[in-house]
Amino acid sequence: MSAALQPHAPPSPDNGALCLVRTLVAQGVDTCFANPGTSEMHFVAALDRVDGMRCVLGLAEGIVTGAADGYYRMADRPAATLLHLGPGLANGLANLHNAKKARSGIVNIVGDHATTHLALDAPLTSDIVAVATPMSHWVRSARSVEAVADDGTEAIRQASARPGRVATLILPADIAWSAAPDDASAQGASIDRLRAKPLDTAAVARAADAVRRGPTTLLLIGDRALRHAAALWAGRIAAKTRCGLRSDFFCARIERGAGRTVVPRLPYAVDPLLAALGDYDRIVLAGAKAPVAFFAYPGKPGVMSKPGCEIIELASPEHDLEAALAALAGAVGATAADTAPLAQRADTAAMLADGDLDSPGIARVLTALIPENAIVVDESLTTGRSFDGMTVNAAPHDWLTGTGGSIGFGLPVAVGAAIASPGRKVVALEGDGSAMYTPQALWTMAREKLDVTVLVFANRTYKILLGEFANVGAGAPGARAYDMLSIDRPALDFVQLANGMGVEASRAGDLRSLTDQLRSALAMQGPRLIEVLVN
Amino acid sequence: MSAALQPHAPPSPDNGALCLVRTLVAQGVDTCFANPGTSEMHFVAALDRVDGMRCVLGLAEGIVTGAADGYYRMADRPAATLLHLGPGLANGLANLHNAKKARSGIVNIVGDHATTHLALDAPLTSDIVAVATPMSHWVRSARSVEAVADDGTEAIRQASARPGRVATLILPADIAWSAAPDDASAQGASIDRLRAKPLDTAAVARAADAVRRGPTTLLLIGDRALRHAAALWAGRIAAKTRCGLRSDFFCARIERGAGRTVVPRLPYAVDPLLAALGDYDRIVLAGAKAPVAFFAYPGKPGVMSKPGCEIIELASPEHDLEAALAALAGAVGATAADTAPLAQRADTAAMLADGDLDSPGIARVLTALIPENAIVVDESLTTGRSFDGMTVNAAPHDWLTGTGGSIGFGLPVAVGAAIASPGRKVVALEGDGSAMYTPQALWTMAREKLDVTVLVFANRTYKILLGEFANVGAGAPGARAYDMLSIDRPALDFVQLANGMGVEASRAGDLRSLTDQLRSALAMQGPRLIEVLVN
Repeated sequence: MSAALQPHAPPSPDNGALCLVRTLVAQGVDTCFANPGTSEMHFVAALDRVDGMRCVLGLAEGIVTGAADGYYRMADRPAATLLHLGPGLANGLANLHNAKKARSGIVNIVGDHATTHLALDAPLTSDIVAVATPMSHWVRSARSVEAVADDGTEAIRQASARPGRVATLILPADIAWSAAPDDASAQGASIDRLRAKPLDTAAVARAADAVRRGPTTLLLIGDRALRHAAALWAGRIAAKTRCGLRSDFFCARIERGAGRTVVPRLPYAVDPLLAALGDYDRIVLAGAKAPVAFFAYPGKPGVMSKPGCEIIELASPEHDLEAALAALAGAVGATAADTAPLAQRADTAAMLADGDLDSPGIARVLTALIPENAIVVDESLTTGRSFDGMTVNAAPHDWLTGTGGSIGFGLPVAVGAAIASPGRKVVALEGDGSAMYTPQALWTMAREKLDVTVLVFANRTYKILLGEFANVGAGAPGARAYDMLSIDRPALDFVQLANGMGVEASRAGDLRSLTDQLRSALAMQGPRLIEVLVN
Repeated sequence: MSAALQPHAPPSPDNGALCLVRTLVAQGVDTCFANPGTSEMHFVAALDRVDGMRCVLGLAEGIVTGAADGYYRMADRPAATLLHLGPGLANGLANLHNAKKARSGIVNIVGDHATTHLALDAPLTSDIVAVATPMSHWVRSARSVEAVADDGTEAIRQASARPGRVATLILPADIAWSAAPDDASAQGASIDRLRAKPLDTAAVARAADAVRRGPTTLLLIGDRALRHAAALWAGRIAAKTRCGLRSDFFCARIERGAGRTVVPRLPYAVDPLLAALGDYDRIVLAGAKAPVAFFAYPGKPGVMSKPGCEIIELASPEHDLEAALAALAGAVGATAADTAPLAQRADTAAMLADGDLDSPGIARVLTALIPENAIVVDESLTTGRSFDGMTVNAAPHDWLTGTGGSIGFGLPVAVGAAIASPGRKVVALEGDGSAMYTPQALWTMAREKLDVTVLVFANRTYKILLGEFANVGAGAPGARAYDMLSIDRPALDFVQLANGMGVEASRAGDLRSLTDQLRSALAMQGPRLIEVLVN
């Protein structure tokens, strides 16, 4: 601890918390998702004195960290979170896991006891560094009030790297409240934000050799290669060479829909995934990883490419993926003149013909009604397993999926995406089971009047687990096992849950009412929930 | 990994998961709070084949771990939890923190990917040992299918120690599904459960010297010294020697009410706590820790006993605290003939006189209506800050408070306490802010038809933080800071939230309706919620 630290001094006009908030704002981190406690009160107090920070309250910490993930996915720059000691951080870890796998940059500020208080082992004491480490790329406990601006700057630099990183800065209460020396109010050095790694020309040549082999090569793209401009190049390469073009199943953000390159996601389940990859002797990776099974299953392989398949990495998320794909296109002679398979806008009237309230029916309604420039957050799991192919002819939009496999990301990511993207409609597709991990997000939507339409697909089971029970070779569930997989006793009433948190809601029991209610929800501003009764 | 492990074999009749469930049941761990996923499906399947395990589903992992804490507090033996990989465990860590501080024994079973799958770094992969470590006393990844019964036995032994410990056993999916050799189906060695540490006779003598000094000595009791039989001895010692008698503010379980020794809890806030301890030159500890401030505050001490105060430890939670207090009573000549200050039953009619819906009014209603042998779980924070003294003349009951300071323990602990104590009414006292960390517990109450009455005190602020904002020297909150401390926009409707999860509910806006609604809730069987509009 620094000699200048004043653990028992009255608050000074300029203190460590104020320095840190100033540093965040000066470096462009102007949004903070927060669930504060006593040790964060000086950070909260600083909000009254520093302009330019939007602070958004969540009622539980999973909302806070998931919102920061959604914010980064849309803004391409980090938000801050404000969390209360080890347990508050712990409650946010699952969505930090997802954010880490999404490669979302986040600056977590976690309050701690005063440094003088830690030795007393008060009840809330825990090893915050240890709690943070598994789900952070970078962890530091602020060193002193003199160094807190630099510590904050380093956290922002880490979070702003390419790809984004989860940076956790622990802020002891006495560093927050102690008087800052004048020169500590500096706001840190300026940050070189998007240092893309230089392209590897040898990798471009190897990838060019591979895609020139045509249909026996797969170009597998991920991360920012799924943005429109980058995917355009990928489409031209595929059109020119007739190589396959796919993305991972899990994608932080895909720009897709009418006018965009069609990049089908690989399937989730092992058997269709093996089938999808069975024709390829080579896989060229651009921002994606070599495909593996999500879970291991008895008697099935974990590596999903066929035996002997060659994996060639063109570029990773550390590179400028658009430049990498443009370079590959150049190497194989693919230009803008090559016919990329762009998606066509569907015939809306045909899509809205009557039908059953099943996944294909819902997908047709989505295809017809997803507004242009909407952001779709997809945690619909079993109901939405095949939405990818079925909604490709919707108006152009972004599609955000789970990335780390931890359930409960959808509603919080929708909060963050909405805050990062004013003027754009967010459509959150949720399973009923997954919605219940972080339902408190609805309250933040109401509080911030976020323009989010939530569809909850209520099948009243953990349906994904019914399938997985068989997949792992456990046979058919008996009564006791089935009881752990069903959530119909009692039935959840999402209309009441949403109303209880200030969100207008309705229930759709057939495709016609879903169409009418979704149309009405999309026409209004602000949050709206529709419980969709599916089987 | 063991040579006998069969990662790709079909499931066998006896597999690792079955061995583990058999071991748990054989060792008396017959209750499992669960939120399973794919990697736990073989554990779930085993429930169909092993009798004697009650498995209780929670919709979020904080419910699961908090319920295991509440179960231990009432049953004095551990329950198991079943959690899904690193993120599932992470979601349960905050309530494991509380359980650890409550000294509750818990056996966490956390599924992991198959050992063969970890190297592939699939999306759900994380370092589960690292996630578990900060909130566990003991962590092990099951070593092999042959050893899993022994690993489980060791976890149960750890959790069953005195005091209880949080033991986390990670169960890789291939160990769960692989065929168990015949001799691995054994259920582990028998466990020596309650190995109390032998009493230190020199400590008894030192403590006796101290309490003989009378009113300048405080006998501070905690942990199982707060059970009726032990507290009776403490009361006799205080009656005989005129020493002070108090408990910590945070208590896992206090047996109190009419006919029990009055053991006032120390105050929470620093100034009253300093005042309460200002008369004491010596503090004798029996299962309690030397008092420290919950948080550090500028200009205030962290150690709460007066300077120079001597701390004498009679016994810790590792000892048999009833025996320790009996020994101390013997040493000072206090016998059953000494007049212990037992609480008297209040005059119910006087308690139920009309009045304002404020903390004293609510406390009078509770004093009149808490049923005999009820279990009160108290997470009422600001509203209930003074309930301790005000409800001392209620019918005899148990009172369970927060222990680790992490908010969101109340409703889950009520679930676990109800399951551990059939036939006893549970009354959960919740703040509105705290209720929203783990509201999903209401669904488990409805599903299991638990006999829990929940009072939510809706002041629509994080009122505790309004006080703390000033306490840490941040002055008065401005508009932006205040926005982070208030939860009135939109107002939460707990009647709809409860109904949405299958729990009957009503709202009380004055003391008369609170009395009527509480009386009706206590007269029925099953869960019931009352939203109490307070200021």
